[in-house]
Amino acid sequence: MIKVAVLGYGTVGSGVVQVLQDNNELIASRIESPIEVKYILDLREFPGDKNEDLIVHDVNVIMDDPEISIVCETMGGTGAAYEFTKTALSRGKSVCTSNKALVEKYGPELIALAGKNNCNYLFEASVGGGIPIIRPINTSLAPEHITSIVGILNGTTNYILTKMDTEGADYADVLKKAQELGYAERDPEADVEGHDAGRKIAILGSLMTGKTVHYEDMYVEGITSIDTLDFAFAGAMNKTVKLIAGIYDNDGEITALVAPHMVNKDHPLAGVNDVFNGIYVTGNMLGEVMFYGKGAGKLATASAVVSDVVDIARADIKGVKIPCAWGEGSQKLTDHRQRKGRFFLRVKETDSDKLKSAVNGLAEETVIDGHAGYITGLMTEEELDKALAGIGTDVKMIRLLQA
Amino acid sequence: MIKVAVLGYGTVGSGVVQVLQDNNELIASRIESPIEVKYILDLREFPGDKNEDLIVHDVNVIMDDPEISIVCETMGGTGAAYEFTKTALSRGKSVCTSNKALVEKYGPELIALAGKNNCNYLFEASVGGGIPIIRPINTSLAPEHITSIVGILNGTTNYILTKMDTEGADYADVLKKAQELGYAERDPEADVEGHDAGRKIAILGSLMTGKTVHYEDMYVEGITSIDTLDFAFAGAMNKTVKLIAGIYDNDGEITALVAPHMVNKDHPLAGVNDVFNGIYVTGNMLGEVMFYGKGAGKLATASAVVSDVVDIARADIKGVKIPCAWGEGSQKLTDHRQRKGRFFLRVKETDSDKLKSAVNGLAEETVIDGHAGYITGLMTEEELDKALAGIGTDVKMIRLLQA
Repeated sequence: MIKVAVLGYGTVGSGVVQVLQDNNELIASRIESPIEVKYILDLREFPGDKNEDLIVHDVNVIMDDPEISIVCETMGGTGAAYEFTKTALSRGKSVCTSNKALVEKYGPELIALAGKNNCNYLFEASVGGGIPIIRPINTSLAPEHITSIVGILNGTTNYILTKMDTEGADYADVLKKAQELGYAERDPEADVEGHDAGRKIAILGSLMTGKTVHYEDMYVEGITSIDTLDFAFAGAMNKTVKLIAGIYDNDGEITALVAPHMVNKDHPLAGVNDVFNGIYVTGNMLGEVMFYGKGAGKLATASAVVSDVVDIARADIKGVKIPCAWGEGSQKLTDHRQRKGRFFLRVKETDSDKLKSAVNGLAEETVIDGHAGYITGLMTEEELDKALAGIGTDVKMIRLLQA
Repeated sequence: MIKVAVLGYGTVGSGVVQVLQDNNELIASRIESPIEVKYILDLREFPGDKNEDLIVHDVNVIMDDPEISIVCETMGGTGAAYEFTKTALSRGKSVCTSNKALVEKYGPELIALAGKNNCNYLFEASVGGGIPIIRPINTSLAPEHITSIVGILNGTTNYILTKMDTEGADYADVLKKAQELGYAERDPEADVEGHDAGRKIAILGSLMTGKTVHYEDMYVEGITSIDTLDFAFAGAMNKTVKLIAGIYDNDGEITALVAPHMVNKDHPLAGVNDVFNGIYVTGNMLGEVMFYGKGAGKLATASAVVSDVVDIARADIKGVKIPCAWGEGSQKLTDHRQRKGRFFLRVKETDSDKLKSAVNGLAEETVIDGHAGYITGLMTEEELDKALAGIGTDVKMIRLLQA
């Protein structure tokens, strides 16, 4: 019998309990052993809840119980969640989590601690909700030299951008509507400024390079400056605008950034709309694959946590360490402005001659509402900045997705 | 040191050798052991080939060598490939394959034989080329009750349908062009009649239900009857036409079929174009996820074979059996005509009154070039057949994708 404890009976935690209970027979058949939730840690009481009897308030009940071999950490935050995870791992209890902040901040330490104690720290649910991505990178793509991962990793901003695109709506209006629908937080900064997507690409990048990619080293730009005119230009150029979190390996030079990008309509990521996420991975042998699905949501995220529970339960039978491509050391990031790309540039129509004389090789001239838009040739962002320095007028720039 | 033999030095086999050699250092680091290709079995000589010295003509050299723990079967066919696979497995050598015909025909027997001999029979490359799909179903989706798998599983037909859609071209013309480009065989029957897609959905269905889904029990219809007028109607209704291979679990009643379907333009599968494949999986907790990528191609398919090699090499260290959801017994299929759906119907405009009096609740009336098209309400195909019996005019029917 596999006995599991769940830390935190909030949205994801209660989802994990539900998946483990509602699909119990099926999961037991997959791991070839019965499995049950023995404890749920929460500070609150849940009178009338069917799992009322499983609630404990003292984490030591869980940590001191040798029957508990797997702990699901669905508390969130980097305080108590960090302490409890360390305690569990140091006692040989495997931990699986949906807590991207914790994984991003302490991943290497917790992975190493798990290794030392012959157990596992798994985090499939920390990126892309229910979309299988961490495990496929660790297993299916193990033979691949991954050269880039680009993703739409934040559902809130993707919902806002999709509505701006399809309804011609204003950023502020759509944000308000998203908040009313519960798709955006009342304080939307972590989403709209790109921090959430940045933490997720840092995790994926750490698996890709094998070394820790630090989110703080990355250039991160949100979607707050994207306006309806940008979408008008994008539409005229058969493109759309997406918040892209990307990490690229150019012959060993690693660059990573989060920023709005113009994406060609025929690129698979252009079809990832509303609150959905898509993760587009390029390998040196495989070419491109994309993983698509709901990037959030109670049961989808919970299912990903439970997929880790299943992995651990299966591996525990033989004492196997589950492979994780995230190794020791920090990954040096090269300034993203040194990577070559193409750029959308927009100026007032009256300034178009100024722009054309500053930047060579502009193409796809498009005029909308007194503004002129162009696509640059292949150049680095540094070269672009130099060309635009001292031009004496406002130039709006949006990167083009190259992967 | 892990030593591998490759059976067949054709397109996929030479790709497997290339992936194992070109990415050797990386793969060795993933499995924490050196790995090398020791033998390549082929009847031909390859003078001047860098791996000339590895070629053997006698399979017993491989089977009798205790150093060989993993055999990659990339010969194709169900004759010698079947015999060699049985021999290898019965001697405890794990086999990984890209041979969908063999997996579809003898999968359960070979999986059981591997189990008996404490080794593994893996076939990630048999469906969707390089797209990770078999392993995610066996691991990432292990907690899920999968309620449907619908896929665009054949690149040739998807290329033809994409060109018909985007260029308004004729089926026969596009087929000819696809043959010239090497995307279609000179004898295209296995592709255009849906057999290839049928074998693949049978494999995925066997993983979904846990019992063998027999391809012969399935309704299979190809794309040869799809014409430009169908695409004109699809376009007018904001849809496209795709060859869909689907298996559905409606409260335990399993239906499976391969047939052209009209797909709404905003469905993720509608964006799967050209030779790409997409597999859209629905789970009871997870909701929908889609896996997208190249469904064929030398290195993409080879990479999937090598991902199985990596899995086996990792598991061999501890003698672990890799999970496979495909168990014993045959899956009974319910007649697909008993599943409810919606249907596109098309008649000559002069016969539209006849059709409207035969079938209740037709909607979205569209008239193009003297023909009238409609979408039915929700009904079974059996009910539709009954309604159309004796109508006394030709009615073209295309199913609508419901998943």
